[in-house]
Formats: sequence, C-alpha cells, structure tokens
Amino acid sequence: MIRYKAIIAYDGTDFSGFQIQDNGRTVQEELERVLMKLSSGQEIKIHGSGRTDSGVHALGQVIHFDLPHARDPEKLRFALDTQSPCDINILSVTAVSDAFHSRFNPHHKTYRYHLTTSRAANPLTRRTSFHVPKLDAYDEMVAGANLLVGTHDFTGFTASGTTIEYKVRTITDVTVERKNEDEVVISFSGNGFLYKQVRNMVGTLIKIGSGKWPARRITEIIKAENRDLAGPTAPAHGLCLVEVIYRDDVSPE
Amino acid sequence: MIRYKAIIAYDGTDFSGFQIQDNGRTVQEELERVLMKLSSGQEIKIHGSGRTDSGVHALGQVIHFDLPHARDPEKLRFALDTQSPCDINILSVTAVSDAFHSRFNPHHKTYRYHLTTSRAANPLTRRTSFHVPKLDAYDEMVAGANLLVGTHDFTGFTASGTTIEYKVRTITDVTVERKNEDEVVISFSGNGFLYKQVRNMVGTLIKIGSGKWPARRITEIIKAENRDLAGPTAPAHGLCLVEVIYRDDVSPE
Repeated sequence: MIRYKAIIAYDGTDFSGFQIQDNGRTVQEELERVLMKLSSGQEIKIHGSGRTDSGVHALGQVIHFDLPHARDPEKLRFALDTQSPCDINILSVTAVSDAFHSRFNPHHKTYRYHLTTSRAANPLTRRTSFHVPKLDAYDEMVAGANLLVGTHDFTGFTASGTTIEYKVRTITDVTVERKNEDEVVISFSGNGFLYKQVRNMVGTLIKIGSGKWPARRITEIIKAENRDLAGPTAPAHGLCLVEVIYRDDVSPE
Repeated sequence: MIRYKAIIAYDGTDFSGFQIQDNGRTVQEELERVLMKLSSGQEIKIHGSGRTDSGVHALGQVIHFDLPHARDPEKLRFALDTQSPCDINILSVTAVSDAFHSRFNPHHKTYRYHLTTSRAANPLTRRTSFHVPKLDAYDEMVAGANLLVGTHDFTGFTASGTTIEYKVRTITDVTVERKNEDEVVISFSGNGFLYKQVRNMVGTLIKIGSGKWPARRITEIIKAENRDLAGPTAPAHGLCLVEVIYRDDVSPE
C-alpha cells in the first residue's frame, strides 16, 4: 500500500461542497469515481485537509489516498487530471509516508476572498468574486482586518449551532490587497478555521469597509463571543482555499 | 432623439456572438430586449463597434443607441445593468452627439488573449483562458509578436473565404506579459482586425512559443499572404475585447 498526497483545484460553483453527502454532487465523490476507474473497480477513499462548503472554490486543497501498488506520481497526476471533470484539476501528486494524514497532520491554511468594487459587476469573474460596489472606508477595513490577527476565541464569527466546543484559533496573517483598479483580495492564514468563520469575518469587514461600523467592532465581537454582533455571512462564491502547508516533512520514510 | 454611447462587458461563453442571428442567443438581442422594456415596448436598435464571434468575451465593447427622450445617463446605466442577464454588464452610459457611430467613427481596438501555462489547467479561469502547458520558447514568441506590429496585408492571418477585399491593417502595439506564474497575456492594438485575425495570430504565436516554428515565420506568412502557412485558429474562449478608443471627441454638440 502506497500513500499519495495530491494538491487539487476546483471550481466550487457546481458542487455541494467537498465532502460526500446524500444529495448533491461533491468533489470527493467525483474523485473517488475516477480513482475507482484507475484501480480496476477497487474502492479508494480520499481524505481532504478539511471540507469546503457548497460553492467555495479551491486552488490548493490537499487530499491523500492509498493505492495497493506504487505508480509513477506524474503519470498518476496526469491520469487523474484528464479523467476528472473540467471543474476539477489535479495540480500535483507525490508519494508520502504512511504517517501523513491530510486532515490530522498539523497544518496551516490560507483562504482568499475576492471582492469586485466597480460600479457594475465584472461578468468574467462573477463566479469567483463578490460584487461590492461601495467600499469607501477601505482604510478602516484594513484596520479591522489587522485586529483579527492573533489567538482568539472566534465564537462571535462562527455559525451558531456548531457542535465544536473549543473555538480558540490562531490567525497568523490577514492581508488586504487592491489588485487592478476594481478588485480587493483579503487573505487569511491560520492553523484552522471554524465553520463559516472566514465568510463571517468577511461579511463583517464589508460592513466596516462600507462605513457602517468602525474597525474596533472586530474586537467587540471577539470579546463578546456573540455571533449576533458580526456581519452577515459573505457568499460562498467569493471564497477560495488557496494553500495548505504542513508543518512536518511528508516525504516517504 | 438622444444618442447614447455605452461601454459594456459580457461573458461570451453562452452567446453565439454579439450580433443578432437566426439561431442562438446573442448580446445584441438580449440588450435590445431590455431597452424595449425600458422604452414602453418601443423597438430600440443597438449598434456595436464590431461583432465579436461566438464565445469571445468583452470587457470594453462600445455600443450606441437612440432614445426618443433624454434620460439621466447613470440611472439609465443602472437600469440597463440590473435588468440585463448576469453575463452582461453595463459599465458606463454617456449622452453623445448624433454624429457618433460606434462602428463607423474612426477607432482603435485592443484585444487580449489569455493563456494558462501551468501543467494542469486552472478550473477557475477555464472559461476565459486557453490552457497551453508547454510554452518553452517564450522569448521566441515575444520576438514573433513584435514582427506583427506595423501596416501589413494580413491575408495570411484571416479566415479564408472572407468577402472583405482590402486586407491591409495597422497593428500599433503587441505586448506579451507574464502575469502570476502561470498566465501569459498577449495584447493586440490596432485600427481594425479581420475576421478571426487575432485568433489566427495567437494560434501562430503558440506554435512559435512551443518551439515548433521560428519567430520569422510571422514575416513569411505576411509576405506569402497564405493562410495555410499560419497556425490553427486559437479557441474563442481565450479572447477578450478590452477597449475601443475613438479618435474624435464624442461629447454632445
């Protein structure tokens, strides 16, 4: 049995998220179907670094799976890539140690949220960027973004009713960049994110960027641990999982 | 009667081109339908700076149309934009002189062609960028691109069987840019382009960039005026009309 790690990209538009579920098309299901074809009908289970929600994109999701026999990693990548549907691509495949687990090995994730700030939307990025025509308090939004950095209890930014008890997470970096004239990209890096946390942080930053709230609202939400104080959940289509970095080396022993 | 000039953007994926035709959905038809609604059922014809082919995108197509009564341009833009389908956006509307004609007034156009050069395609740009994983002779491609600049008979780069007789055009600028790690953007500016000329030039540049032909092939194709010497027509989905600039001022008299 050989374990493989793969970096994959997908357009989340037509998926009900990464993880297999009873209803709706998922990335996991599509990839497991391709792996089964490549393995003469044997079932191969894949494990992702985490779920992504319905509509969320990925340019650097990490998965792992076990194959009964060793295969050339680049030939395997090419076969998986060409047999996957056009909204999934396989960027790299490497053989890894059996000790590697895409979800349980300590890792860092980076998400990017894309905003289009022009008066009219851009039809070419409408599936990957959220249109927010008024973002006049841009500097205040940047100040708010910086207040998210650190180790905090993020209860105020997670979906209410989540079953996870421990809600302390560390955000190592938040950057807000203006790209081109009409695009703003907010990147979040950290050791883990709660359910809908990134989209709730973005929804709150948009309120601040629109001049409705001051930057210090971020600190108030963190302190109060109250979801009702945060902004609305920003839509899924602006969000993209861009990188998963593992702390330990994952090359085969 | 008041004439309006509008700058519009569209995702060409689900259109059979700009211009109305018997079969297939077109940008012109969709916009004329919206204008009719906004004009209490009166038919309003729109004129574009030129056609774009089936599948070709635009971020800066220019149209004009006449309305019986004056309207506030920004309110008109907003109404057109919000009532258009999600793959068309109206970027600006201005009142112009009756002498303005989007097609016949002398103008300059810029087209951009997007290439993705990574090993695997990018699922998020698959509708707007052509995947060419091997572009090793990049410098030779840039040299070839520069040979297109100038006033030439472009017979060798137009679709055979076109009815236009005079095929001399001036290309004022061609730039090849690497963006990010895996994206190459080729921009063409000029006073007019023949049917499929840009896509045929791109198909030829890709042959050169892949190391199959030397840069001087461009000059040979121009001299021979022979379509058979040029590369295949690059696919429509990589092409975007980004700007139309008019020589004369078009503000109302």
